[in-house]
Amino acid sequence: MTLLDFDSDRLAQFSAQVRADYEELKAKNLKLDLTRGKPSSEQLDFGESLLALPGEGDHIDADGQDVRNYGNLKGIRDIRELWAEVLGVNPENLLAGDASSLNIMFDLVSWSYASGNNDSERAWKDEEKVRWICPVPGYDRHFTISEHFGFEMVTVPMLEDGPDVAAIKELVKDPQVKGMWAVPTFGNPTGITFSEEVCRELATMETAAPDFRIVWDNAYAVHTLTGEFPPIHDVVAFAEEAGNPNRFWAMSSTSKITLAGAGVSFFHSSKANLDWYLKIAGVRGIGPNKVNQLAHARYFGNAEGVRAVMRKHAGSLAPKFARVVEIMEDRLGEYEVARWTEPEGGYFISLDVIDGTASRVVELAKEAGIALTGAGSSFPLKDDPNNRNIRLAPSLPPVEELEVAMDGVATCVLLAAVEKLGA
Amino acid sequence: MTLLDFDSDRLAQFSAQVRADYEELKAKNLKLDLTRGKPSSEQLDFGESLLALPGEGDHIDADGQDVRNYGNLKGIRDIRELWAEVLGVNPENLLAGDASSLNIMFDLVSWSYASGNNDSERAWKDEEKVRWICPVPGYDRHFTISEHFGFEMVTVPMLEDGPDVAAIKELVKDPQVKGMWAVPTFGNPTGITFSEEVCRELATMETAAPDFRIVWDNAYAVHTLTGEFPPIHDVVAFAEEAGNPNRFWAMSSTSKITLAGAGVSFFHSSKANLDWYLKIAGVRGIGPNKVNQLAHARYFGNAEGVRAVMRKHAGSLAPKFARVVEIMEDRLGEYEVARWTEPEGGYFISLDVIDGTASRVVELAKEAGIALTGAGSSFPLKDDPNNRNIRLAPSLPPVEELEVAMDGVATCVLLAAVEKLGA
Repeated sequence: MTLLDFDSDRLAQFSAQVRADYEELKAKNLKLDLTRGKPSSEQLDFGESLLALPGEGDHIDADGQDVRNYGNLKGIRDIRELWAEVLGVNPENLLAGDASSLNIMFDLVSWSYASGNNDSERAWKDEEKVRWICPVPGYDRHFTISEHFGFEMVTVPMLEDGPDVAAIKELVKDPQVKGMWAVPTFGNPTGITFSEEVCRELATMETAAPDFRIVWDNAYAVHTLTGEFPPIHDVVAFAEEAGNPNRFWAMSSTSKITLAGAGVSFFHSSKANLDWYLKIAGVRGIGPNKVNQLAHARYFGNAEGVRAVMRKHAGSLAPKFARVVEIMEDRLGEYEVARWTEPEGGYFISLDVIDGTASRVVELAKEAGIALTGAGSSFPLKDDPNNRNIRLAPSLPPVEELEVAMDGVATCVLLAAVEKLGA
Repeated sequence: MTLLDFDSDRLAQFSAQVRADYEELKAKNLKLDLTRGKPSSEQLDFGESLLALPGEGDHIDADGQDVRNYGNLKGIRDIRELWAEVLGVNPENLLAGDASSLNIMFDLVSWSYASGNNDSERAWKDEEKVRWICPVPGYDRHFTISEHFGFEMVTVPMLEDGPDVAAIKELVKDPQVKGMWAVPTFGNPTGITFSEEVCRELATMETAAPDFRIVWDNAYAVHTLTGEFPPIHDVVAFAEEAGNPNRFWAMSSTSKITLAGAGVSFFHSSKANLDWYLKIAGVRGIGPNKVNQLAHARYFGNAEGVRAVMRKHAGSLAPKFARVVEIMEDRLGEYEVARWTEPEGGYFISLDVIDGTASRVVELAKEAGIALTGAGSSFPLKDDPNNRNIRLAPSLPPVEELEVAMDGVATCVLLAAVEKLGA
């Protein structure tokens, strides 16, 4: 029987119980944090040997160059070839950078804003308006970049197999629509992976703006929770075949594979896009940290080495995700006051509560010492029109803390629901 | 007797000799490179232990935080405090970044262009014109950044104790003058170190633009060739005392101290400037590579550790600089066809040849297999109005190669001179 089917007596009784549970929760004086998609210490330990790599005496890359010295904007061949094999792409179209692919995304947008990109008729700053497609729920840091440059963000819903392509095809008829964010594998926060059909449609669709770009943030390309790796679609190749060679700026990184703040980022795109990027990157600096790139090449050994590390992460993360889902099923399932994703990869569980109550759930949790990501944070301008979505990040806390926190969250979801029902 | 005093017979005889020397030089089929201000392998070996640092098990910083994980835009306290001691500044006003301070300089200019800085009335892109003061000769990569954003570069001459402050004070009466480049210690390529008086005048002078900034690139702050370290003037403090707290964006890095492409960069400025920077840096990314910062803190140990490394560099570099000067004195001294600097620090020797012949010298050297930095490269738009200046970079080649190359360069200087005299 769902909460909505309760008669008023039963609802009152239930409400009293939930309120008592919540008081008990507050009395525990918890201090727990489910906000951050950070790897745990256990996961970081998988990469511990990197702290002593590449090791003394090991400083020459596959091209015979000294990685300790200046130069090589593209990054060293050792890591580019290894990562190209992971992605199944041409290493000539793949750059290796410093630790953060988000840095590269910001720069691509920033430089297009200041000067236009290689297909622009004018700098984006000189456009009357720039519109940007944001599948929702999505990654808050993407939206913050669009917001920073004053772009108008237009949302499209995420469906089972990726964003709503029909809606996107309509939007890109507008020449002011210059780009789109995408997290194609185990998306943040939905866990959804784009189907090959969606990938191909995004690659082949016509756009009014010649300088339209899809920022293809494949942050979780190999971040399985099951040990099964999804296919990685080479959208740059799809787009080239379709006559849209410069459509994708494709990103990935080792941030949640090796060390979260000290990995290697990668940028895969057409030659024309990379040449444009490198020209400005060459004004901005001399080259990325190649010592860290060599350390990573040594650490992984080869593409299979990457997958071996990811199986270890799955072994650490999967039980946490499973416990979150179990607790929600146990505590919330029968009342039908929430829906949640059961992702097969990535870093997040997306929790939808009764419309209008997400911010109240977050507030109640905060009062009980459980930090949740702010309601609405998976939407542009942090505005969830239904006030429904909460992003849960189960990776960082140990299982025991996670269990306590999720049990508390469940109590908050129920309390917000009975409040909403006026009980 | 100088070349200009030669009578025509003696000049003809001399010319024949120089031409014969040049043919002999070409016959050697050299392949030598004096273009790059790169450390040599010997110097990079001083930092070799960094390739195994911080080492397994060492990943907690002075604040108890795990450097392997995300976060901490300011950089870790361990390296900020150490470097603040080197510079003699307040560590709270010092950020530690990734490897490249040039990256930070570009971003500061880029973000001011897109949005204005914390003192701007409008974004620099919306100014009718932005003018930028460029002391010459100066660092080519600085000028390339100003050029990239379309700024009009206005040159001022370098004097013995820094740039011509009287000229600068006139220029900054123009509100469109928004900034200035400076390499205050062992400058590139002149080797000149700004006097305290010049530092204070730049800090205290009135400027029409409230958002005027001096990019204070103290790249060679501790790069002595003599073992003597020049005083490091805290211009941020000078400016604050003078009521111009936000005047300086001050940069330094370990690039030519530890590993050229894999060091740590530093940004020292007022709190308001840093807050503005961090706000946008926090949109661009999550934080710098803190593992590398911890590795550097462990490598140096303390500020004296930095100076100890710099004495080793001096031991490697000083003999090279000395040989270059000796060869020029031997081969060119008596003819008075050139002047050169004898720097006490930094990476360059600045060679002035007879007006109008610098590009010819570079061309002749190239034909003889000796790569020199392009004539004019130390000037905005690579335009040396006197076609006089050549930047010599003695650091990279071993001494034996350097001697051969410099002997060849001397021959080219003489040949260009006799050609100029019509002999």
